[in-house]
Amino acid sequence: MPLQLPATADDYRRLARARLPRFLFDYIDGGATDEQTVRANVADWATIALRQRVLVDVDGIDTSATLLGQACSMPLALAPVGLAGLMARRGEAQAARAARAAGVPFTLSTVGICPLAEVTEAAGPVWFQLYMLRDRGVVRALLQRAWESGCRTLVFTVDLPVSGMRHRDTRNGLESASARARLIRAGQLLSRPAWLLDVAVRGQPHAFGNLTDQVPGAADFTAFKAWVDTQFDPSVTWAEIDWLRAQWQGAIALKGVLDAEDATAAVRAGVQGIVVSNHGGRQLDGVASTVAKLPAIVQAVGGGAEVLVDGGIRSGVDVFRALALGARGALIGRPWAFALAAAGERGVSDLLSRWRRELLLAMTLTGARSPAEIDGARLDRPKS
Amino acid sequence: MPLQLPATADDYRRLARARLPRFLFDYIDGGATDEQTVRANVADWATIALRQRVLVDVDGIDTSATLLGQACSMPLALAPVGLAGLMARRGEAQAARAARAAGVPFTLSTVGICPLAEVTEAAGPVWFQLYMLRDRGVVRALLQRAWESGCRTLVFTVDLPVSGMRHRDTRNGLESASARARLIRAGQLLSRPAWLLDVAVRGQPHAFGNLTDQVPGAADFTAFKAWVDTQFDPSVTWAEIDWLRAQWQGAIALKGVLDAEDATAAVRAGVQGIVVSNHGGRQLDGVASTVAKLPAIVQAVGGGAEVLVDGGIRSGVDVFRALALGARGALIGRPWAFALAAAGERGVSDLLSRWRRELLLAMTLTGARSPAEIDGARLDRPKS
Amino acid sequence: MPLQLPATADDYRRLARARLPRFLFDYIDGGATDEQTVRANVADWATIALRQRVLVDVDGIDTSATLLGQACSMPLALAPVGLAGLMARRGEAQAARAARAAGVPFTLSTVGICPLAEVTEAAGPVWFQLYMLRDRGVVRALLQRAWESGCRTLVFTVDLPVSGMRHRDTRNGLESASARARLIRAGQLLSRPAWLLDVAVRGQPHAFGNLTDQVPGAADFTAFKAWVDTQFDPSVTWAEIDWLRAQWQGAIALKGVLDAEDATAAVRAGVQGIVVSNHGGRQLDGVASTVAKLPAIVQAVGGGAEVLVDGGIRSGVDVFRALALGARGALIGRPWAFALAAAGERGVSDLLSRWRRELLLAMTLTGARSPAEIDGARLDRPKS
Amino acid sequence: MPLQLPATADDYRRLARARLPRFLFDYIDGGATDEQTVRANVADWATIALRQRVLVDVDGIDTSATLLGQACSMPLALAPVGLAGLMARRGEAQAARAARAAGVPFTLSTVGICPLAEVTEAAGPVWFQLYMLRDRGVVRALLQRAWESGCRTLVFTVDLPVSGMRHRDTRNGLESASARARLIRAGQLLSRPAWLLDVAVRGQPHAFGNLTDQVPGAADFTAFKAWVDTQFDPSVTWAEIDWLRAQWQGAIALKGVLDAEDATAAVRAGVQGIVVSNHGGRQLDGVASTVAKLPAIVQAVGGGAEVLVDGGIRSGVDVFRALALGARGALIGRPWAFALAAAGERGVSDLLSRWRRELLLAMTLTGARSPAEIDGARLDRPKS
Ligand SMILES: Cc1cc2nc3c(=O)[nH]c(=O)nc-3n(C[C@H](O)[C@H](O)[C@H](O)COP(=O)(O)O)c2cc1C
Ligand SMILES: Cc1cc2nc3c(=O)[nH]c(=O)nc-3n(C[C@H](O)[C@H](O)[C@H](O)COP(=O)(O)O)c2cc1C
Ligand SMILES: Cc1cc2nc3c(=O)[nH]c(=O)nc-3n(C[C@H](O)[C@H](O)[C@H](O)COP(=O)(O)O)c2cc1C
Ligand SMILES: Cc1cc2nc3c(=O)[nH]c(=O)nc-3n(C[C@H](O)[C@H](O)[C@H](O)COP(=O)(O)O)c2cc1C
Repeated sequence: MPLQLPATADDYRRLARARLPRFLFDYIDGGATDEQTVRANVADWATIALRQRVLVDVDGIDTSATLLGQACSMPLALAPVGLAGLMARRGEAQAARAARAAGVPFTLSTVGICPLAEVTEAAGPVWFQLYMLRDRGVVRALLQRAWESGCRTLVFTVDLPVSGMRHRDTRNGLESASARARLIRAGQLLSRPAWLLDVAVRGQPHAFGNLTDQVPGAADFTAFKAWVDTQFDPSVTWAEIDWLRAQWQGAIALKGVLDAEDATAAVRAGVQGIVVSNHGGRQLDGVASTVAKLPAIVQAVGGGAEVLVDGGIRSGVDVFRALALGARGALIGRPWAFALAAAGERGVSDLLSRWRRELLLAMTLTGARSPAEIDGARLDRPKS
Repeated sequence: MPLQLPATADDYRRLARARLPRFLFDYIDGGATDEQTVRANVADWATIALRQRVLVDVDGIDTSATLLGQACSMPLALAPVGLAGLMARRGEAQAARAARAAGVPFTLSTVGICPLAEVTEAAGPVWFQLYMLRDRGVVRALLQRAWESGCRTLVFTVDLPVSGMRHRDTRNGLESASARARLIRAGQLLSRPAWLLDVAVRGQPHAFGNLTDQVPGAADFTAFKAWVDTQFDPSVTWAEIDWLRAQWQGAIALKGVLDAEDATAAVRAGVQGIVVSNHGGRQLDGVASTVAKLPAIVQAVGGGAEVLVDGGIRSGVDVFRALALGARGALIGRPWAFALAAAGERGVSDLLSRWRRELLLAMTLTGARSPAEIDGARLDRPKS
Repeated sequence: MPLQLPATADDYRRLARARLPRFLFDYIDGGATDEQTVRANVADWATIALRQRVLVDVDGIDTSATLLGQACSMPLALAPVGLAGLMARRGEAQAARAARAAGVPFTLSTVGICPLAEVTEAAGPVWFQLYMLRDRGVVRALLQRAWESGCRTLVFTVDLPVSGMRHRDTRNGLESASARARLIRAGQLLSRPAWLLDVAVRGQPHAFGNLTDQVPGAADFTAFKAWVDTQFDPSVTWAEIDWLRAQWQGAIALKGVLDAEDATAAVRAGVQGIVVSNHGGRQLDGVASTVAKLPAIVQAVGGGAEVLVDGGIRSGVDVFRALALGARGALIGRPWAFALAAAGERGVSDLLSRWRRELLLAMTLTGARSPAEIDGARLDRPKS
Repeated sequence: MPLQLPATADDYRRLARARLPRFLFDYIDGGATDEQTVRANVADWATIALRQRVLVDVDGIDTSATLLGQACSMPLALAPVGLAGLMARRGEAQAARAARAAGVPFTLSTVGICPLAEVTEAAGPVWFQLYMLRDRGVVRALLQRAWESGCRTLVFTVDLPVSGMRHRDTRNGLESASARARLIRAGQLLSRPAWLLDVAVRGQPHAFGNLTDQVPGAADFTAFKAWVDTQFDPSVTWAEIDWLRAQWQGAIALKGVLDAEDATAAVRAGVQGIVVSNHGGRQLDGVASTVAKLPAIVQAVGGGAEVLVDGGIRSGVDVFRALALGARGALIGRPWAFALAAAGERGVSDLLSRWRRELLLAMTLTGARSPAEIDGARLDRPKS
């Protein structure tokens, strides 16, 4: 690549690849088995065509919106990304600072590296993402700590009853303790001395900040997977939502809904929001892209909850598309993780400010003066 | 590439890439954000199939046509291209000469390098393209100068209320004043010494010929963008067309219409022509290709104005396709800019003469004896 | 390829390519003429989308199933692959052992290298695949030996009345006795010394284990093809099934059915199972993929026989898809042959255990608690 | 490419590229302008799916057929290819010999290198292809010579009223007399010394064998094109067919029909056959592939004439497809020209014998016992 400055999520991805040890890059970039859904998530947004309108007065239009009760500079939030703290030194704290400066919510994963306290101290209250653990006592403690640190929005992820199968992890030797596997990992680490020094050495500790009593350390992927597979609870059903609502005073969004029937059930269960998601294509390969399912889910929900969406959103234009299809807002995972890996807090800030300009531009050229005006009539659909 | 002579728009593009500093090549070649629309503009023409007919007497058929009242050797015009004067020494003058020799209209951009006087002196009257500026006094002065220099056709561009977002400019450091950005630009300039000497040094001055009082100089992209964003008027609405018609005696064509509703409004506003355009995919990425929208717009206009089209037209066969879909004529942007960059006036002449042969051939083999005979019946459409 | 561990069928394919002489790799990998059907077999599975469901209790779900009366750990069997014994030293015995350990059936080809006795001694009873030979006495003897070795399931292959046309064999000189052809083959052999020593030298003998009286040796492809073309019987019709049922007490599955009309005939003929197959795209290029034909065949059969399917299945998710489309189970050919070539018995074991995890995961995330629950409602189909 | 033997049309194409001077290779390989139709011709055949049928008695089936009254070993003929004599020494004579040995018709082009007498002396009577020249006296003389040499089938080509626009010729300097163009051509010639000696030097003379009085020499492409453009008659209409029938006692096939309306007119004009063709995509780029138009034309003709088809046929399976769509036979152009260039008469023989085996195999596996049994029911069409 010739010497160039980064402009897009994909540019930051390339920079991240050059900076991170391969297994870490692959951990973010990859998905379940053959990664069809990962690719579909991205590709399918591109099929949604916008309508260019002219000679509309577009002086002084505005991108601000409200997501799950929180005022935002634009209808976008940072999705929970486990282990994000390994992308850069104390990664979640850096990204949360960038999100706060940009005026958008940051979501901290159950399996983040920085503890909630460190993140909120750096950047104020954030959203907290929960995985259901077999030990409900631990869950209750997590929720309590989140509440106390000022968090009022809970993102409850339901599409990870067991961890997905990621071939790249196998290839990189993360699932084996053999000498060959250890050699592969060591080779990948040694070829990234800058990351080693800055993050691995100076960015300690690398335990899971919110689960220090539960899991040993985050560096050991094999042990981590084993812990997930024994501690995450695959027997959770809709009944559990009642239990959760009893523990949590704030808003609850159900993350990982990809089917209209499940969306209807979610509304019935009384959650405030749902996140249409296939976990970024990391769980079940072969399921539809989120954009393909979004319209039917919006229709099924019928205003009974806020519908957010994530998966494959790679530009401000994609955020516009999500809204035009009926979502209230969008979440992004890999884009911010890569920007963070490539250039730390500054990278995330830059990405967010560019996307906001892009969204503003899309509004300007379609003649939508506010996010509320971004509806289906802004799309170019073949007549049927 | 083996040693070869140029035959197509794409061949000239390759030659231009070898001759221009990268940021300049990218400025022409690129488009908005992910450039989906740029690609769709080109790709979608290829889906329009022609009908081969045989044993029709095709001796002595003819390509000549009339566009917006002007007799042309074929139904094609050169679209306005800002900064074209940087493609070759005094570029607009060279291209206008080639257009005149070929018998087709040349359109000078508001933000061209050569002033109107220089161009008309070299090549006779041309079409003039207008962007609406906040300062209506400047606009009035521009129009007056255009009229006095013999121009009778005004192309009023309405799809640039603000300037689009072009990632390539960011990557090439055009939007930053940092040392790194300056280094990138300098490196790109130094690797093209022939252009530097011929155009940058000997092709002076490089101010915007028609706006010398308004904008400092064209070489500084960052300052240029800032000027566009403060001076271009995003509050213009349909009402403004009345004002414009009061200032201009000649024909007015509205450039940048991509929606049937806007086309209807344009007819109502009383313009003589519309140019179906998405600004070559340079403004809002994700909008439909122009060919996809052309038929519905032709239908909506219903003869109330001349419908021209641009975007992705890359051959004489594409010009034929545009006419078969109901357009009266086609405009081209990048093709002439690249031919100019690659081989100056001679390049543009060669391109135009080849396209004319190609159009003639398409007419011969479909049995259409004049542009007027190129209609929907010349297309091969699956029965429905 | 960077240093990595194998995770998928495709990874094993790459390793096999590095280990096998080219003509042998091409013999497995290739197909009939232009290999359109080979590619379609694989590509078309990817178009079948799964439905992600959440908050279903998926603790302790199970993949076990029954195929043609045999209890299996999952609904998968190893398809018959001729000459598989050349992939690794005494290849069929190794693969059969891996299959037995994994709890899935192994099918021995009529033209396998290891004789039935060798395979069953190593791994217990297997399925036996039959080609109809002109000399019915030989066929009867084959069936008798199979029965005596404990085999109770006969797979009768009907899509190879003559051998297909495989361009790769021609290119690699397998169909010519010219000096140039011999040179090509010798060069390919010499570039794979590890295989030469391990398999060609130490893996002797290389006759067709079940046909030692009939065919000279397996190493000579040209003689083998000639033998197939003279000995295989292209005049076999449905009437022959009666004869076959008279010879064989166990279950019979007809392999190579790709048309609903033929499937109906098979049910009428009274077979226990059919294998929807186009011989892995090795016989008639240009026929539909097996997945494209599966639903219509399932409907035609209407429960009158067990429907299995093979062709292009490359993951546990594909096995899930086959069941969701109505198959009772799936067979795989190339995947196990490549795993065997790459890493022997251990390779096949690893592949099978990974696919089982993958199938389990697909069940978990679609909420199907057993193979019987994998039906059409687990697929995401656009409403019509 | 590793050392391999040729098996397909595409393999011969690669060998031809290595042997011919580039401009000559490009002359055969290329097509009109952007070559969309060239590609569509090939790609669209692949979309026609065959139906695999099993347990049909396919012992002793047969490919022989009758085309325009001539008994053939299979329903295939060699299409007229101008300048084919430059592919190999005395090229048309070599190819005609191979065609005769294989039992299929050879068509000699008006603008072939070898005169009719030389070809028929080598290989017996062939088909003769006619372009209409302005000078009807010359045409009459041509027809008389053809008749006297035993030719009874006239192929009258109607899709070349003027010569097409082939960008590759421009790129290779064939259309320019400049020093640069001459240099390009000389460089290409000098890099192919084997061809230079064998064909250019020892294969003399290189005049157009049937037009020695009319055109100077074939080596000069520019002069050739000029001659075509002045001598070919673009004013020919359907009325001319009457004149032609008056001159010719034998069968007449109209080559270049691509539209159902023209096919109807051809039947009305009383010709014995039509060849559905777009001149191999060499005349009007952007027209449909021949396979796309074949079914409608077959229906329009309704048995009133024999329908042949050419364009993009690259295998015996494609020949099968043509018949299944209603054609009586197929013609091939580039495939034989490349085989001839790569390996002379032997190459053409090999290609034809392989295609016959392929056709036989397709018949075997679809259960069609003769070309007459290859009908629409042999295709796998989605139910509607
Ligand atoms: C590396 C990585 C780690 C993730 N970890 C979590 C997690 O801990 N909790 C969670 O709910 N989702 C997690 N996700 C899913 C994201 O929240 C989000 O749904 C997904 O990344 C959206 O797709 P995108 O990456 O294409 O934007 C993770 C995603 C990635 C890429
Ligand atoms: C480098 C460049 C500069 C342009 N500048 C102008 C301009 O100043 N005014 C305008 O109305 N359109 C401008 N356009 C748009 C063109 O007039 C035209 O709509 C577009 O180029 C057509 O698409 P094509 O390039 O695919 O032919 C510009 C286009 C390019 C490529
Ligand atoms: C190298 C090879 C040899 C094969 N030999 C036989 C065989 O002897 N008998 C048979 O019935 N099928 C044979 N087949 C077909 C397989 O049984 C099976 O139908 C096919 O491989 C399934 O497609 P897949 O390879 O894409 O999984 C063979 C396939 C391959 C790849
Ligand atoms: C190099 C070349 C020369 C040709 N010359 C003639 C010709 O002289 N007369 C004619 O009727 N068709 C001519 N054709 C067209 C062929 O007869 C035929 O229609 C076409 O090649 C079929 O397409 P295919 O090449 O894809 O098989 C020519 C084609 C090629 C490729």
